[in-house]
Amino acid sequence: MKKILNPNKNEWSALMQRPTRNFKEIEATVTQIFKEIQQKGDVAVAKYTSFFDGIELSKISVSDVELKEGIALVPNELKDAIKQAKTNIEAFHSAQKTERITIETTEGVSCWQEKRPIQKVGLYIPGGSAPLFSTVLMLAVPAQLAGCQEIILCSPPNKDGKINSAILYAANLCGVTKILKVGGIQAIAGMTFGTESIPKVSKIFGPGNQFVTVAKQVATQFGIAIDLPAGPSELLVVADDSAIPAFVASDLLSQAEHGSDSQVILVSTSKKMITAVEKEVEEQLNKLPRKDIAEKAIGNSKLIYVENDTIALDFINEYAPEHFIIATANEDFYVDGIQNAGSVFVGKYTPESAGDYASGTNHTLPTNGFAKNYSGVNLDNFLKAMTFQKITEKGLQNIGKTIEIMAEAEGLQAHKNAVTLRLNALKNKNI
Amino acid sequence: MKKILNPNKNEWSALMQRPTRNFKEIEATVTQIFKEIQQKGDVAVAKYTSFFDGIELSKISVSDVELKEGIALVPNELKDAIKQAKTNIEAFHSAQKTERITIETTEGVSCWQEKRPIQKVGLYIPGGSAPLFSTVLMLAVPAQLAGCQEIILCSPPNKDGKINSAILYAANLCGVTKILKVGGIQAIAGMTFGTESIPKVSKIFGPGNQFVTVAKQVATQFGIAIDLPAGPSELLVVADDSAIPAFVASDLLSQAEHGSDSQVILVSTSKKMITAVEKEVEEQLNKLPRKDIAEKAIGNSKLIYVENDTIALDFINEYAPEHFIIATANEDFYVDGIQNAGSVFVGKYTPESAGDYASGTNHTLPTNGFAKNYSGVNLDNFLKAMTFQKITEKGLQNIGKTIEIMAEAEGLQAHKNAVTLRLNALKNKNI
Repeated sequence: MKKILNPNKNEWSALMQRPTRNFKEIEATVTQIFKEIQQKGDVAVAKYTSFFDGIELSKISVSDVELKEGIALVPNELKDAIKQAKTNIEAFHSAQKTERITIETTEGVSCWQEKRPIQKVGLYIPGGSAPLFSTVLMLAVPAQLAGCQEIILCSPPNKDGKINSAILYAANLCGVTKILKVGGIQAIAGMTFGTESIPKVSKIFGPGNQFVTVAKQVATQFGIAIDLPAGPSELLVVADDSAIPAFVASDLLSQAEHGSDSQVILVSTSKKMITAVEKEVEEQLNKLPRKDIAEKAIGNSKLIYVENDTIALDFINEYAPEHFIIATANEDFYVDGIQNAGSVFVGKYTPESAGDYASGTNHTLPTNGFAKNYSGVNLDNFLKAMTFQKITEKGLQNIGKTIEIMAEAEGLQAHKNAVTLRLNALKNKNI
Repeated sequence: MKKILNPNKNEWSALMQRPTRNFKEIEATVTQIFKEIQQKGDVAVAKYTSFFDGIELSKISVSDVELKEGIALVPNELKDAIKQAKTNIEAFHSAQKTERITIETTEGVSCWQEKRPIQKVGLYIPGGSAPLFSTVLMLAVPAQLAGCQEIILCSPPNKDGKINSAILYAANLCGVTKILKVGGIQAIAGMTFGTESIPKVSKIFGPGNQFVTVAKQVATQFGIAIDLPAGPSELLVVADDSAIPAFVASDLLSQAEHGSDSQVILVSTSKKMITAVEKEVEEQLNKLPRKDIAEKAIGNSKLIYVENDTIALDFINEYAPEHFIIATANEDFYVDGIQNAGSVFVGKYTPESAGDYASGTNHTLPTNGFAKNYSGVNLDNFLKAMTFQKITEKGLQNIGKTIEIMAEAEGLQAHKNAVTLRLNALKNKNI
């Protein structure tokens, strides 16, 4: 890990840099596959499933029988764990429901805002080495709470043409309406255009490798909304002398094992803590099965000493971490002062992995500094806020003049006319 | 206007088509200007202001003296109108504030969600023939309510090097922190990268011509968030025999005068109403100063007869209009059933122009079918929802096992370790 002592303000922007990726060369491939799937539907999907996943499937939708078989394979202990996590995620996301907001802004002018579900959503769940069934919970639970009519889940088939059984179990538990064995670019393209087997959706959620990330960006060019611009996962811990080095090290490593491009940072006002954490990281790293991945990520990571909490907070707000752990005695200083972070973990007994799985908060969060301008996934991401208004005769008389004056000043006569005609009708009516 | 009687379901998708635009040829220009402004800052901004706006400015930020002079030019009647509109917009957007949501999902596991402002936002206000000071209200009012620290406004200078005085008045009234005389691609690029005079922002809001629209899309490639993908404005009116043809016609025309690519649609269960509205549109059109623009838009527009309200509602939900006016006796059927619309106007005395200016709802809304997956601008667009969690020793003991089981099943050992270490420490502590 790189140690940086008391960085000067003009060195900050270099410290804010995330590992960069170049998507340009992937874009051409993605655009080509999109074009083919738009034109040829399922035939093109099958071609790319064969090419990328090495399997030919006669049918890509998961049947009831397959689903049952998959569910039976999940150990009861894991089922119970998934159910507890679901209960907590459901509780936290239910609490985010907002009621209709109604207000009479002027006598006779009623305005209201109401949230209605996005009708068709698509969830992408990666396959591969780590089957992310936890992400199924994080996306399907709020989708179901929001009342989305169709919740489509796409995940790549393994060499046997199957989807991981824990993913099937979680999808079934959380109200997913259709599960499809399709992954990568072809899944995103399928949900963008719709094919014979894959329904077209309005919004696509979920993580993925660089191909999926670029495919989601390309999907937006075709009118599809996406959850978040994605990037490698990151964690920033602030720790003072009250922290426990072993805990801090375990948190840094839990982030580092995600991928070799993950980024972990420790900011501390204690040089002693920095040295102690560094030592702990080395010790714990050696015991990890994903040591190779974590080691690379740790290589890119930084231990930053700063002189006081104010500087630390400024730095953290400028960095805008996806995950932010507060391991200091003066927790409130950071809780109150943090302006830019995806999710915040407060205190010694709040590891990031709690939020990744089971505490109730969502783990789909803004990376790469996007915590400055994006929220993590929450209930509202599955809803649209629509506004309504109803104006009475009296109400129009109250605000009509204002509308006429403003429309005229903007040079929009027909906007004015729509009011004038009505005001005149009311005048005649009153005579 | 094109009349369509009882369209077959397989004709719907053609009727949903919006006037298309091809942005590809603009993109190269935009990318070039972005590159230059990223490298050369103010010098490049000045070059393009000279090129596009035909003016050389020694200073682009509006001084206090200029601001005062501008404000003095606004007639009192218009000032009062703007103030009334602001009061209503403020009332409706204040009502959208949400409190911190706290929930203990499991004993000892506290999760909370809190919204904090996006710190730096940029508002783009077009100049040209129609100075959209109303848009200043629609964007600056919620930005100020949200607590954004920096609210930057860019608007192109006119031939005298000035910004329209009503725009200056509204900006000053609504807490804009800096006003810059810069428009088009150069304004968006400036706010994306920051220059000597233009602050870098995290999110850009506001309408604009096709150059601004593409520039906003390009800005997202550099980590900037934007309010909405933009498209030509649209209105759909549903009317039965109870509607007043002159009112309906005036609403269709108020939308049509926005631009020759605006789209207006009447859906009706009454052939009589369709004929009556068509006649009224012709009559009112001839008296409009922006007749040429409105005539072109009306040429693209559609009068659609359908047999009953259920078909009408299905069609409207599939079309997903930006503005939706309900001019029928059974208002509630449509109010309850509409799933996809930006803003809904209910009843005879609720013209769309009320929402454009003064009722209190926002006029920055999703076009081009985006009402299926996007909200119109609201208070939350200026905030990020951040989550927090704090777990006690007891809390971690309650959910620790669940996290361990799930992390292990996903093959993420370091995630498990972060919990195991802590649970072991607690065991030892309790001995």
